[in-house]
Amino acid sequence: MIQAVTDQLDPWGALGRLRQAAPLVHCITNYVAMDVTANALLAIGASPAMVHANEEVEEFTGISSALMINIGTLSPAWVQAMERAADRAGALGKPWVLDPVGAGATAYRTRTARDLAGRRPAVVRGNASEILSLAGEVGGTKGVDSTRGADEAAGPARELARGLGCVVAVTGEVDHVTDGRRMLAVQHGHAMMTRVTALGCALTGITGAFLAVEPDPLLAAAYALAFFGLAGEMAASGALGPGTLRMRLMDALYVLDTVQQSELRIRSI
Amino acid sequence: MIQAVTDQLDPWGALGRLRQAAPLVHCITNYVAMDVTANALLAIGASPAMVHANEEVEEFTGISSALMINIGTLSPAWVQAMERAADRAGALGKPWVLDPVGAGATAYRTRTARDLAGRRPAVVRGNASEILSLAGEVGGTKGVDSTRGADEAAGPARELARGLGCVVAVTGEVDHVTDGRRMLAVQHGHAMMTRVTALGCALTGITGAFLAVEPDPLLAAAYALAFFGLAGEMAASGALGPGTLRMRLMDALYVLDTVQQSELRIRSI
Amino acid sequence: MIQAVTDQLDPWGALGRLRQAAPLVHCITNYVAMDVTANALLAIGASPAMVHANEEVEEFTGISSALMINIGTLSPAWVQAMERAADRAGALGKPWVLDPVGAGATAYRTRTARDLAGRRPAVVRGNASEILSLAGEVGGTKGVDSTRGADEAAGPARELARGLGCVVAVTGEVDHVTDGRRMLAVQHGHAMMTRVTALGCALTGITGAFLAVEPDPLLAAAYALAFFGLAGEMAASGALGPGTLRMRLMDALYVLDTVQQSELRIRSI
Repeated sequence: MIQAVTDQLDPWGALGRLRQAAPLVHCITNYVAMDVTANALLAIGASPAMVHANEEVEEFTGISSALMINIGTLSPAWVQAMERAADRAGALGKPWVLDPVGAGATAYRTRTARDLAGRRPAVVRGNASEILSLAGEVGGTKGVDSTRGADEAAGPARELARGLGCVVAVTGEVDHVTDGRRMLAVQHGHAMMTRVTALGCALTGITGAFLAVEPDPLLAAAYALAFFGLAGEMAASGALGPGTLRMRLMDALYVLDTVQQSELRIRSI
Repeated sequence: MIQAVTDQLDPWGALGRLRQAAPLVHCITNYVAMDVTANALLAIGASPAMVHANEEVEEFTGISSALMINIGTLSPAWVQAMERAADRAGALGKPWVLDPVGAGATAYRTRTARDLAGRRPAVVRGNASEILSLAGEVGGTKGVDSTRGADEAAGPARELARGLGCVVAVTGEVDHVTDGRRMLAVQHGHAMMTRVTALGCALTGITGAFLAVEPDPLLAAAYALAFFGLAGEMAASGALGPGTLRMRLMDALYVLDTVQQSELRIRSI
Repeated sequence: MIQAVTDQLDPWGALGRLRQAAPLVHCITNYVAMDVTANALLAIGASPAMVHANEEVEEFTGISSALMINIGTLSPAWVQAMERAADRAGALGKPWVLDPVGAGATAYRTRTARDLAGRRPAVVRGNASEILSLAGEVGGTKGVDSTRGADEAAGPARELARGLGCVVAVTGEVDHVTDGRRMLAVQHGHAMMTRVTALGCALTGITGAFLAVEPDPLLAAAYALAFFGLAGEMAASGALGPGTLRMRLMDALYVLDTVQQSELRIRSI
């Protein structure tokens, strides 16, 4: 049965649909990540919009194809907008993805992440520390960076996915994606990517774009991880440092469809 | 009489004055656009400052040479600051430019854009959907991206300019700039620019810088469009993708005065 | 006695400790600067986090190694968070650095900068206009850019450092750093750096990172200035413009430890 998952894999087909549809992805994200997230979404072919005012956030969710919520620089008015948008997406049957940045670092952040995670996202995408924190474990975060490996979090991620009824993606050297039953490992990316700010946040935005064109959230999350990591590898190749990497990452996302011969490293485990 | 407009064109002279004066441009703009707008203004030779607190916004307008207001990530406190700054600019006779991002996408956004447009900006700069929305037409926006062509909006833009008593610039493949009587078409830019976030917002900032040194807002807007588009062409030439384009765009704005042999494609229509 | 300062200089040792410790630097900074500041801190080897909500700001200061406060886009809720974080850092004996962006430009900004400066930062880092404004002089700012030379501000900086009981760093063509008794001059950097937004803010972040690993704030500030300036020189070398410079600056910060043969231009004066 697990084999069935990888038989279904069609990442290049999904990428083609994404480029065709150019889905409007509603992003409520942190100040640090906005620029790179918007640019990554535009580069891969989606249409991002950052909208957070309580006066319009639900209406905007209504015209979008998918929603991304990231709590990186949260504050009360923004959290209220996130809750409203999440609930509206749920009411309209639109997929949304949660990025619980820094869950575990402060009580406010952990509480907000857990509350949002309970509002039926299609996907929760975080590093090991954040996912472990959502799963109820204590400690292990250093600000917004993880001090735990993604494989450590694979088991708790499966439990969390079952509890929340959604897909959980834990990113690290190898990424793990699970809906509580199936589990995929994605092996793409480059260590230098951790030296560029907000690439995890941008990846969550890309996950939103794939959710708009791929009905199975497990596959949507895996495609986002694989393509973003592949673009990162292309960008890191020969790069002198993280400045060059970031610039080239946008170029790589833009030309992803020209490297279709690449086999993506997504496997069932 | 229309021929008289193009006889008056002196874009390189205006660029020289801009570099000489290095005008302080007060920007109240969206979170996504702040970095690229500030960098574009610095690259072309202006002095940008992002100031939005109600506690200081009017005082800051008072020491600036021009004001730029962009509603991309609006919320009530920011809208209040925008209104105050616009009114102060009006009272002081300082030029200001409005970027009605996403007008037509939500009721809050449309209402705010219309209210600000009524406060006598020197220039309103938007895509076709935004301008059509301000002109009273319904529909046609997809988030913050236009689904309409700039030429479709040329007629409504002229009416809007007459109604508001200001210059209206509609950007697209060909840009149209009108004060309700005169109409200029500017043909510069590159399709890949639409894959970099907030370049329209940055262009609005550049428009503010030209308003500080060119008393005729029709010409100021046309110069901003032409130079920004020319820099975009220079940046796109040989670029692998939008990452490279964005970096090179800053370089191109910085060296614009070294390409004076270029004839700008601005014509009366 | 003054000679003793330069005898103590060990910038490369401090850089090594920074890379080893990867200190968590809590940043409360302006919207324009967040991206470039986070990227600069990651590139040099630190771990930045932008956290500003009153609901969590003190808790976050508690888990950080150093704090950076920058008032670039201040507003009342943010100022409250800055005050809380500064006081918490003081109570916990954690070093923090203040960047009084635009002090002197508006009354609100000057008042806020002075209030924060009185809360015992380890370092205040500003341009000449800002430092002169804090020192009680009137005028000399143009928005957020200085109209005064750093050497003009060296004397007032010494007085200010004595009055505040902290280190004051004035940046310009030559940077001056003083604790009111000792005075260091740092001569690094490149004129094109003034054409990239928020590099002064990013430098303040880097100062925070050095404060986490160097107990003498005079030396920490001088190291930050020297390394950031050196990286700027590396980045500007052969750069066509500020777009290229900014990208390469991140690369240069990343590879700083490979250029250890460079002698840094830090001298007692």
